[in-house]
Amino acid sequence: METKIAIQGIKGSFHHQVAQEYFGKDITLIECMTFDNLVDGLLKKDAFQGVMAIENSIAGSIIPNYALIDKNELHIIGEHYLQIHHNLMALPGQTISDILEVHSHPMALLQCKEFFRKYPHIKLVEDADTAETAKRISEKQLMGIAAIASKTAAELYQLSVLASEIQTINNNSTRFVIVKTQNSVLSKDEINKASLKFELDHKRGSLATVLNVMSDCRLNLTKIQSLPKIETPWKYAFFVDVTFDKYEDYEKAAKLLTIMADHFKILGEYRNARVL
Amino acid sequence: METKIAIQGIKGSFHHQVAQEYFGKDITLIECMTFDNLVDGLLKKDAFQGVMAIENSIAGSIIPNYALIDKNELHIIGEHYLQIHHNLMALPGQTISDILEVHSHPMALLQCKEFFRKYPHIKLVEDADTAETAKRISEKQLMGIAAIASKTAAELYQLSVLASEIQTINNNSTRFVIVKTQNSVLSKDEINKASLKFELDHKRGSLATVLNVMSDCRLNLTKIQSLPKIETPWKYAFFVDVTFDKYEDYEKAAKLLTIMADHFKILGEYRNARVL
Repeated sequence: METKIAIQGIKGSFHHQVAQEYFGKDITLIECMTFDNLVDGLLKKDAFQGVMAIENSIAGSIIPNYALIDKNELHIIGEHYLQIHHNLMALPGQTISDILEVHSHPMALLQCKEFFRKYPHIKLVEDADTAETAKRISEKQLMGIAAIASKTAAELYQLSVLASEIQTINNNSTRFVIVKTQNSVLSKDEINKASLKFELDHKRGSLATVLNVMSDCRLNLTKIQSLPKIETPWKYAFFVDVTFDKYEDYEKAAKLLTIMADHFKILGEYRNARVL
Repeated sequence: METKIAIQGIKGSFHHQVAQEYFGKDITLIECMTFDNLVDGLLKKDAFQGVMAIENSIAGSIIPNYALIDKNELHIIGEHYLQIHHNLMALPGQTISDILEVHSHPMALLQCKEFFRKYPHIKLVEDADTAETAKRISEKQLMGIAAIASKTAAELYQLSVLASEIQTINNNSTRFVIVKTQNSVLSKDEINKASLKFELDHKRGSLATVLNVMSDCRLNLTKIQSLPKIETPWKYAFFVDVTFDKYEDYEKAAKLLTIMADHFKILGEYRNARVL
């Protein structure tokens, strides 16, 4: 049961790759076309764990996914970083001059924008998933249309790679989180990272005060993101990730922040996947 | 010459509305299909000022636009907030049960997601611009396809509104910035807000130290966003917006930050458009 993993996208997608790297090859994949569907699947217990992209080096945080985790009371129980390699692929026999349209996920199109500046005749069309487009081109034998996806997708759906590594920035790392409806069962020794959310008034120095507490408690800040609170002018929500050596230090900071900030919430406690 | 305003999108788009509210009706609109095109237009001097969406209450910052401003050395010379009202529109005579596909900008689709849960037969298709889809439906007399756009777009392109105010969250405010290749000519008395960028090491407390300086100099933080520096692990770039009463306070903070942080850069100094 525990190996049923919900991903956004289909076999051959980057989420699939993360699921395999994190959980191993012996998993049952629940393919979801949107992140909303993925969350619905977890709530309905079609799957017990889900893989969700949460930020990348180019576009920053995927705020709607933070909102999904927050609103549906999901727990982040782990994280995984994946270097994204984009490849242009089409039906065998097609060359790049045959291609009139490239369909892919908006993020993939954004990450390969520079490459397509050389090919102004190619129209970029947004699609739901990288691998799904590859599959569709193959199934419907679509001529003149190319996909941007992983090498695995090209192999799975028998497409030829017209150009490989077409991402603009080579160090294109995307961070994924593993989410569950129940909390993680890690021991305090294993936990060295946490994702937190809290609210503060727009008062001079209020964030500085909170960060001072974190720093005093020996927490390292690896991410911070403010978001104005809808319906409440001048009130801000902050999403913060921290790493730490000792769980006790973090525990102390969490107790202080519960008092100092409004609606302090732990989105997840897990093991830092980034190697120093 | 100064009234040539570059916008992302076409007549009837939300960018068009912002351009009119900020500069008045007497402007020459330069329609650009992408933000990249908009920047190209400014650099080639097709237009002297541009309007660019920069963040909204639902999806947060539009990081690629920050990157465009930063990379191309544009200056933010003003800001404008717009309440976004989304309307579903199609050819006159069509009803909602006739609609098979809705085409719009990914952000508009995201903001109206809840509405379409009631209509599972409608496929959501991402498109480049809200108004452009409305125009296309009208020009090509497309049946079965609806657009999500402003009331102005419906009037301009003779479409019927099938449902109005279909955004999930009613207080859906989007922040736009006005950008130029040259710096602003505002006097110090008029300036009470600035957008800053700086880099810091991943060292415990480094951000807290910077925020303490800002707080000591009586700056209010209205936005903060960290972004891992690509190619440099453990180094972070921060995009920060601050408001202040006295330019002298801000000037002092800027001098200190130049020394304390790496690559301190002023993206723009302008007048706060948000009413308290």
